[in-house]
Amino acid sequence: MPSAEFDFIDRIRQLAPTRPEVLLGIGDDASLLQIPGQCVVSTDIVMDGTDFHLAQCGWKAAGRKALAVNLSDMAAMAATPIAVFIGLVLPSSASTENCDQLMSGIMELASEFHVAVAGGDTNTWDGKLAISVTILGSVAAGAAVRRHGAQPGDLLCVTGPLGGSISGHHLTFTPRINAALWLAKHCQINAMLDLSDGLASDLRHLAQESRVGFIIDAERIPISPAALQQATLDSLSPLEHALGDGEDFELLLTLSRQDFENVTQKMAGQQLDFQLIPIGEATTDLQLKMVMGDGSVKILPDLGYRHQFDQPDPL
Amino acid sequence: MPSAEFDFIDRIRQLAPTRPEVLLGIGDDASLLQIPGQCVVSTDIVMDGTDFHLAQCGWKAAGRKALAVNLSDMAAMAATPIAVFIGLVLPSSASTENCDQLMSGIMELASEFHVAVAGGDTNTWDGKLAISVTILGSVAAGAAVRRHGAQPGDLLCVTGPLGGSISGHHLTFTPRINAALWLAKHCQINAMLDLSDGLASDLRHLAQESRVGFIIDAERIPISPAALQQATLDSLSPLEHALGDGEDFELLLTLSRQDFENVTQKMAGQQLDFQLIPIGEATTDLQLKMVMGDGSVKILPDLGYRHQFDQPDPL
Repeated sequence: MPSAEFDFIDRIRQLAPTRPEVLLGIGDDASLLQIPGQCVVSTDIVMDGTDFHLAQCGWKAAGRKALAVNLSDMAAMAATPIAVFIGLVLPSSASTENCDQLMSGIMELASEFHVAVAGGDTNTWDGKLAISVTILGSVAAGAAVRRHGAQPGDLLCVTGPLGGSISGHHLTFTPRINAALWLAKHCQINAMLDLSDGLASDLRHLAQESRVGFIIDAERIPISPAALQQATLDSLSPLEHALGDGEDFELLLTLSRQDFENVTQKMAGQQLDFQLIPIGEATTDLQLKMVMGDGSVKILPDLGYRHQFDQPDPL
Repeated sequence: MPSAEFDFIDRIRQLAPTRPEVLLGIGDDASLLQIPGQCVVSTDIVMDGTDFHLAQCGWKAAGRKALAVNLSDMAAMAATPIAVFIGLVLPSSASTENCDQLMSGIMELASEFHVAVAGGDTNTWDGKLAISVTILGSVAAGAAVRRHGAQPGDLLCVTGPLGGSISGHHLTFTPRINAALWLAKHCQINAMLDLSDGLASDLRHLAQESRVGFIIDAERIPISPAALQQATLDSLSPLEHALGDGEDFELLLTLSRQDFENVTQKMAGQQLDFQLIPIGEATTDLQLKMVMGDGSVKILPDLGYRHQFDQPDPL
């Protein structure tokens, strides 16, 4: 290992936020943790040219996104994030300042959510930047919210507006950790995921894992200002952007009508940074349908995931 | 996410080895584990052109190495490996068969060591192959063997011959999980690591973390046949290869003389696939010294890590 890498690792070791659950962090062959309850684990890799454009967004935003998408997975399970492990594949042209900026993007968000940076691996090559993050979180036994528990009759809700993420939200979003933990405390969430591939695609996952269908109401889908803006630039409607863009990183969840009424009462008057917007209902037939503004019902198109970054960021 | 990626993930989901500690594996936003005792975590990334040459070694060997280096970290802590999380960055030219071979290299080694493949992330880009693996293991509270416990007077031992790994061992080595667990059961290991950067470099880590020095005996360092062979091809001596090549993935450990005597008696007559070769002793002065064959004492050169893959594999 070149000595510059040792120096970089030493700086990370000194600056890394920690937590009591981390008994041993960076510096040995492995790290040592005492995770209370059950251990929730997720891995995501973000890459230059695919998940961000480094030349446009800069190193700090790239680092921030690498952690943010993993925190979003913890939110989707209603887990408390504990520690992250960072695998860096750095272009050989990366300067010390670039690497420090990258780590500051990770460290600042980690500090904000009280997550330890507990280990990692640093490598250099002649290719582009890739950042792998593995996150460990904690839930009480049986408390993880999965994708498979939606019941027919459940209301389907999202925590914020959708679409147009490419214009900036995908780099700056706040992972919905606080929303997930607040909701899980105050109601029973039957099924949940975070919207990464887009509502139309991710709803299919929820339906398949829960063995239900959904009927959503086109007029109730919250459309972000960015989706409205995007629609002026291309041939897609704002609704199509909200259904298909992906990388919203809002939570998509189901709960009973009774729980919805109870929890919205509890939300009133609280200072909360998320909404709980009902957009449809789980059904016994296994189809995905959408009620349009004119009352007609469409089978929800499988928009799949239109990869957002085929064109450079308009940032 | 393109549908080919979903298909690949579905195949992995069906074939992935599991374990009772994995309550929920591939398929949700995150995985769920119940780790007994303390949780030991390590991350390593291996990359085409740096850690292997894909065109020469093939996809299966690349996958195997990605897991093997992580298992070696678990061995270095005397931890029982439980589950791995695989992050793949695939070149867009990768065929379905390539991906299946890569995963078979991981799955076969995982099965051999009873490790679950419990989650991951798959991505494609126009760059080269990189494989990130994060491994979770388990140790009883206080039983992890760290780098910092070497005592002056301890014997320094290695579990096998060193040097020349580039000629094949770095791809085919058996991670020393069984050795570590057997030794940890039968003696007190005061400090341990796995030899990845090379004896001269890694010994420095052990010395620094333990705040001791070491004196090693040049004639007792076990030199692999591959190091002898390499020495005929370049200007370095077999000893220099053994000290500096790296990627031996043998364990380097210290224990008291008494424990060494006891454990070598227990080893006699057992069918074990490792050795315990004393090569030196921990000292109170903080230097790294080497006694040569003629009785002279040298300060151990800081060979650092001569990166093995500046030239293509001679495989």
